[in-house]
Amino acid sequence: MAQQLIAGIDIGGTKIAVAIAAAAGKIVASNSFPTEGGRTPQDLMGQALETIERLAETHHGRLAAIGIGCAGPLDLDRGVVWAPPNMPRNWRQFPLRSFVESKSRLPVIVDNDANAAALAEHLFGAGRGYSDLVYFTISTGIGGGIISNNVLAHRWGEAGHVTVNPGGALCGCGARGCLEAECSGTSMARRAQEHLLSGKPSKLRDLVEDIKQVSAKTVTDAAREGDELACAVWQETVSLMAIGIGSIVALLAPQAIILGGGVTAGAGEFLLQPLRAELNERVRIVSMEGVQVLQAAFGADSGLYGALALAAGSL
Amino acid sequence: MAQQLIAGIDIGGTKIAVAIAAAAGKIVASNSFPTEGGRTPQDLMGQALETIERLAETHHGRLAAIGIGCAGPLDLDRGVVWAPPNMPRNWRQFPLRSFVESKSRLPVIVDNDANAAALAEHLFGAGRGYSDLVYFTISTGIGGGIISNNVLAHRWGEAGHVTVNPGGALCGCGARGCLEAECSGTSMARRAQEHLLSGKPSKLRDLVEDIKQVSAKTVTDAAREGDELACAVWQETVSLMAIGIGSIVALLAPQAIILGGGVTAGAGEFLLQPLRAELNERVRIVSMEGVQVLQAAFGADSGLYGALALAAGSL
Repeated sequence: MAQQLIAGIDIGGTKIAVAIAAAAGKIVASNSFPTEGGRTPQDLMGQALETIERLAETHHGRLAAIGIGCAGPLDLDRGVVWAPPNMPRNWRQFPLRSFVESKSRLPVIVDNDANAAALAEHLFGAGRGYSDLVYFTISTGIGGGIISNNVLAHRWGEAGHVTVNPGGALCGCGARGCLEAECSGTSMARRAQEHLLSGKPSKLRDLVEDIKQVSAKTVTDAAREGDELACAVWQETVSLMAIGIGSIVALLAPQAIILGGGVTAGAGEFLLQPLRAELNERVRIVSMEGVQVLQAAFGADSGLYGALALAAGSL
Repeated sequence: MAQQLIAGIDIGGTKIAVAIAAAAGKIVASNSFPTEGGRTPQDLMGQALETIERLAETHHGRLAAIGIGCAGPLDLDRGVVWAPPNMPRNWRQFPLRSFVESKSRLPVIVDNDANAAALAEHLFGAGRGYSDLVYFTISTGIGGGIISNNVLAHRWGEAGHVTVNPGGALCGCGARGCLEAECSGTSMARRAQEHLLSGKPSKLRDLVEDIKQVSAKTVTDAAREGDELACAVWQETVSLMAIGIGSIVALLAPQAIILGGGVTAGAGEFLLQPLRAELNERVRIVSMEGVQVLQAAFGADSGLYGALALAAGSL
């Protein structure tokens, strides 16, 4: 009998990645192609399904479900793409789930990428064995997903928008001092640029041609090398991050906090070690001994593993 | 056939209240007696059970379950009282659930009072019809309980310990700037006292013999009358409260926020109106149009209704 397989589709603004995998998340085969703005979402999803079916046939597998991760906001009840800022305009209001379901005649699960990544870590990654965890992606922005009692709480709000600095930086959401506004890679870069513009010395100046090119990565690199300004920005970011993550730990008492996204991938323990120390210092109502602070298992592949996790979670 | 009844026991530091009710929470009969420190918890629970059984007999009812609300911390897995600061010392390590279960031969559900009150509001009170809500008791301290997808998330942490003022007032938990440390009745009174000690004029001075007697109630009363100092303290408290509640709204996107406890009972809409305005102003990622901010239905009786809700929730 044919092997049971699941499929994942990771829809991003620049490429669409697909994979087929065993139910435990082991990828059997994958492929990707560009998200050309000139092509309709129907056309692109048609190509994704053809690719998946071809891969499944080659590997003598029988598909059981398709998971799709997509940049939010999404209408989760109806599986409709809302108005993702990083996607071509013709994706607006695209009925993603019903289109793929009717084409494939398979169960299709659609969710936003941060929720999907949280589920991937829980089912296949650093969060295996933890019934209650919070996943954060620290990247251009900050997103998150919550697993409560082994279930993805996908209808909940946004972990990146707890307040860490009342009256602080204006957030993209319109509020002030959100975790995302103070601790994302973008915010870290902005803070470093402000210090540089005020004339403070730093080897960051030697790493870029223009101060505007200072990124989270250059700040991380300079902080690792002990640059005073970069270290100050890093410490301030970690400290603010611990306020937001600490509030969530106090409220939910999860067994694990898992950090993913580009900033975490670039920094690793250089981020996690001071963050654990700050959380130990700040969080008192819940014992941090019972809360593991871990790096995500799926760095750049979190989207694809997230899509596969959605499919696996539906079996 | 005898009517099916549930029983509730509310264990407090000064009295133990019991009630029997229909499953929908309608109290049929109730009674209470003092928590005498000279008597053992076994003795007092024996009296509670005798009272319950007598009431059930008088009303021709058949008991189906007993719910018990008790001041935390509790070991919820084993139903053991831990070390409640407001109870006589001989309650420490008392195996509450197993004792009452073996005596009554009925299912017994034990939880802390804030969780129980959250469930009572969800099943019988202001939270009926909302599958996802957060309940806060604003009183001497601040406690809370979360209902997620119609289930009490009773293993979670403490809603009173999200950070609202980093580097702010020292909290009883050992952290700084927690919601409880900044917005409880105790904190409101402390803030008013500090202003008075610094010499600021206020009619609060006329309401008490000694500045130390200024309480949340006197601040509420003076603020209602337009006293400038009391109004400033009130506004600052509400503003900080909105930071903490706003973070929880952003994270969980509940359908309702329900406020109970003595401070809320004393202030009502005088608290809720400015709080709604501050939340509307602060919370952007979640539409506050979808979040009702409501006063709890069970003021001083939240403990007893909470205990009954635990029993009702187990049927």
